[in-house]
Amino acid sequence: MSSSSCMDSLSLLVVSAFLLFPTALFQLSNGGVTSSFIRKSEPSVDMPFDADVFQPPPGYNAPQQVRIMQGDHEGKAVIVSWVTPSEPGPRIVFYGMAEEKRRYKAHASSVTTYRFFDYSSGFIHHCLLKNLEHDTEYFYQIGIGESSRQFSFKTPPAVGPDVPYTFGIIGDLGQTYDSNETLSHYLANQRGQAVLFVGDLSYADDHPNHDNRRWDTFGRMIERSIAYQPWITTAGNHEIDFAPEIGEVAPFKPYKRRYRVPYKASQSTSPLWYSVKRASAYIIALSSYSAYGKYTPQYQWLQNELPKVNRTETPWLIVLVHSPLYNSYNYHYMEGETMRVQFESWFVEYKVDLVLSGHVHAYERSERVSNIAYNITNNDATPIPDPSAPVYITIGDGGNIEGLATNFTEPQPSYSAYREASFGHAILDIKNRTHAYYAWYRNHDGNAVLGDSVCFYNRYWGSNER
Amino acid sequence: MSSSSCMDSLSLLVVSAFLLFPTALFQLSNGGVTSSFIRKSEPSVDMPFDADVFQPPPGYNAPQQVRIMQGDHEGKAVIVSWVTPSEPGPRIVFYGMAEEKRRYKAHASSVTTYRFFDYSSGFIHHCLLKNLEHDTEYFYQIGIGESSRQFSFKTPPAVGPDVPYTFGIIGDLGQTYDSNETLSHYLANQRGQAVLFVGDLSYADDHPNHDNRRWDTFGRMIERSIAYQPWITTAGNHEIDFAPEIGEVAPFKPYKRRYRVPYKASQSTSPLWYSVKRASAYIIALSSYSAYGKYTPQYQWLQNELPKVNRTETPWLIVLVHSPLYNSYNYHYMEGETMRVQFESWFVEYKVDLVLSGHVHAYERSERVSNIAYNITNNDATPIPDPSAPVYITIGDGGNIEGLATNFTEPQPSYSAYREASFGHAILDIKNRTHAYYAWYRNHDGNAVLGDSVCFYNRYWGSNER
Ligand SMILES: [Fe+2]
Ligand SMILES: [Fe+2]
Repeated sequence: MSSSSCMDSLSLLVVSAFLLFPTALFQLSNGGVTSSFIRKSEPSVDMPFDADVFQPPPGYNAPQQVRIMQGDHEGKAVIVSWVTPSEPGPRIVFYGMAEEKRRYKAHASSVTTYRFFDYSSGFIHHCLLKNLEHDTEYFYQIGIGESSRQFSFKTPPAVGPDVPYTFGIIGDLGQTYDSNETLSHYLANQRGQAVLFVGDLSYADDHPNHDNRRWDTFGRMIERSIAYQPWITTAGNHEIDFAPEIGEVAPFKPYKRRYRVPYKASQSTSPLWYSVKRASAYIIALSSYSAYGKYTPQYQWLQNELPKVNRTETPWLIVLVHSPLYNSYNYHYMEGETMRVQFESWFVEYKVDLVLSGHVHAYERSERVSNIAYNITNNDATPIPDPSAPVYITIGDGGNIEGLATNFTEPQPSYSAYREASFGHAILDIKNRTHAYYAWYRNHDGNAVLGDSVCFYNRYWGSNER
Repeated sequence: MSSSSCMDSLSLLVVSAFLLFPTALFQLSNGGVTSSFIRKSEPSVDMPFDADVFQPPPGYNAPQQVRIMQGDHEGKAVIVSWVTPSEPGPRIVFYGMAEEKRRYKAHASSVTTYRFFDYSSGFIHHCLLKNLEHDTEYFYQIGIGESSRQFSFKTPPAVGPDVPYTFGIIGDLGQTYDSNETLSHYLANQRGQAVLFVGDLSYADDHPNHDNRRWDTFGRMIERSIAYQPWITTAGNHEIDFAPEIGEVAPFKPYKRRYRVPYKASQSTSPLWYSVKRASAYIIALSSYSAYGKYTPQYQWLQNELPKVNRTETPWLIVLVHSPLYNSYNYHYMEGETMRVQFESWFVEYKVDLVLSGHVHAYERSERVSNIAYNITNNDATPIPDPSAPVYITIGDGGNIEGLATNFTEPQPSYSAYREASFGHAILDIKNRTHAYYAWYRNHDGNAVLGDSVCFYNRYWGSNER
């Protein structure tokens, strides 16, 4: 619980990063850095349908797009989801603690299809595995005979204040060559135990009629990660899939059908906002694209939810929301204001540690600031340093088809601590109740290169630093 | 088209109002008046179920809660809705231009029921009468034999820039004795041809388990107006009826089942936001309690909608939205900020004439101000006079069970032109493309007494005054 554990690893990584990429700028104290590194922005294009990472598994009706998600509030259940292309079923998941002894079985509670304009989905299965042991590796199998497939996952340790845990952070991924590189770098990093995904998954909606085959290719591309560790997902604007011009008027249809989250376990009434506990973290996912005005379901849920967070049990309070509340790029500038006005004072009141967002296709980390004094007549609407405020991280730099945001507001506002127009991902390495080591890695020359790193002190247990 | 027509009637009414209630304050130029008149706030209670105005009509299965609504975008169609208590049907509406010659008939396209916790609704019918003549009185009959009922309505004149038309404005009505008084005063006024209703209808949700019988009593109470002229409705927070504690998690269920609006005619995908043209007015209803962030359906719809408004055809652009964007009462102070941040710049860009809201149970009229210069770093977030800005009117003073808002922010901010804690309603009397006479009437001593009045100059055609 001493600060040295975090600072030691930090120093080590800073050094190694300098060795790997000596021109990068590092800034560990306040100041506001705009990195000189800007990835050359060739057009990002989605990989062709025949790309290797999009290929379905062999065998008739073999399960594909296999993914897991935390299935309850505490981390003792897992939702396994998969798609079969030709017929529904088999609905059974065999699972167990040893590769050769999958003694348990569970049945998919739901097998559905959906149509989107002229697209018909495969058979989408969701199956809950419950009463799992904590901190245990499970092997699971879906399908039978030649079409069967095997995967494994490790359940998180029991919830507790000093339980170390390492999250990956990815946003706005898409399915370009850059997307695939980001995912490969995350996997090569080998440290993330679960992903905090801050919205904008497949970018299918950038294709004519929201070509929903791109939801399938994306599902196959990410299987190599998401079948083995949960991605705690947040809905972005590319999940809305609202297309009245082709008769598709139900927002979030493909996303809700495909990505199952345990929202009822946190008394939510919608999969678009929910919470889970995992190790020493309490993670709240919000929806930028649902109603959040006073009296609305999301507002009421969050109002009830925040007081429930017991920082003695889960010291780290992390909010995921797609549209950033603090962003100093010209892209999407001030889009998060409408939610900031509504929720920022709660984030400060409840000492949220981190607010993770995507949407802007670049990277930015804020200082701990708040802007909650405004009362209309006092003209007091400036972000100011606030030790109770979260750090806001924008990490919509997964590498999608829409390319990088390379255009900064100038001068760099004081709330912006570090910003860089590169693709990448981050790792949040929670050490104990007081410290977490955080590092953002840019994609570069085939390596995941450290670009920004900082030691976060917990807002509840830590000192008032950073 | 000269200003004298409006000012003449204005002067006349100001004089007569002084006679009726000489202590009221009138303020026709800028300055900010807090009226000294504050209605003594006895508790408002909902009238008992056996109140006269709640009684169903005689006869087996007689149609009740009869109401009409504009049924298309131009005003040549009417939706007739009604409830039968015992069995579905008859589904037919007989109608025609003379009381004794109802030569046309139309069939209800929809007969539904719904359940809400332990409540089961009657049979809710919606029937579209289309291809009507403009500016014509129609008589209509629902039900047969002893249970039949007769009503009439007058269609609006054809849309045009100088077509005079008179709207009533009512908000937050409820079903107390005060509510009934407001409605009686509006009817006694005899000038309103259609009602702009700014949300919060029945307040059923203030009763245990949102006692939906209170939707029925409310529907019977208002029939004496709404069966004869359309109420152009906006959803308020009391329409949400979100009650997860009793398993009711679909927002707006009773409201959407009962109140039908022609949203598809304005390319909307939800009854919670839509537009209609009526005479010389273009009316846009928005939802404070739905998503309005960028990319959401409501945002996209409004973004497409505003450029469609042809001020040469409909000079008067009026927005209805429940939660006020400018409010200087302590009640619900700043609740509208999150929508203001999102939509105010559009209201100014498109020179909206009036934004009508409810929610605060009192009356307020703003100056023409805007607060759209803020860019986070410039600290420029003060409402300033702006001739392109709407006047914001808060008129949530229908008289509901929750009582009056009597507590002002002090000092009265410069954006507030007139505020008074009384129940009442308003009349907007559009004279031509340049002028509209507006008056707010407080309920007092059994009379509708003029409390605030002003001549509005059209933002597109009028001078830059007021
Ligand atoms: Fe996005
Ligand atoms: Fe309200």
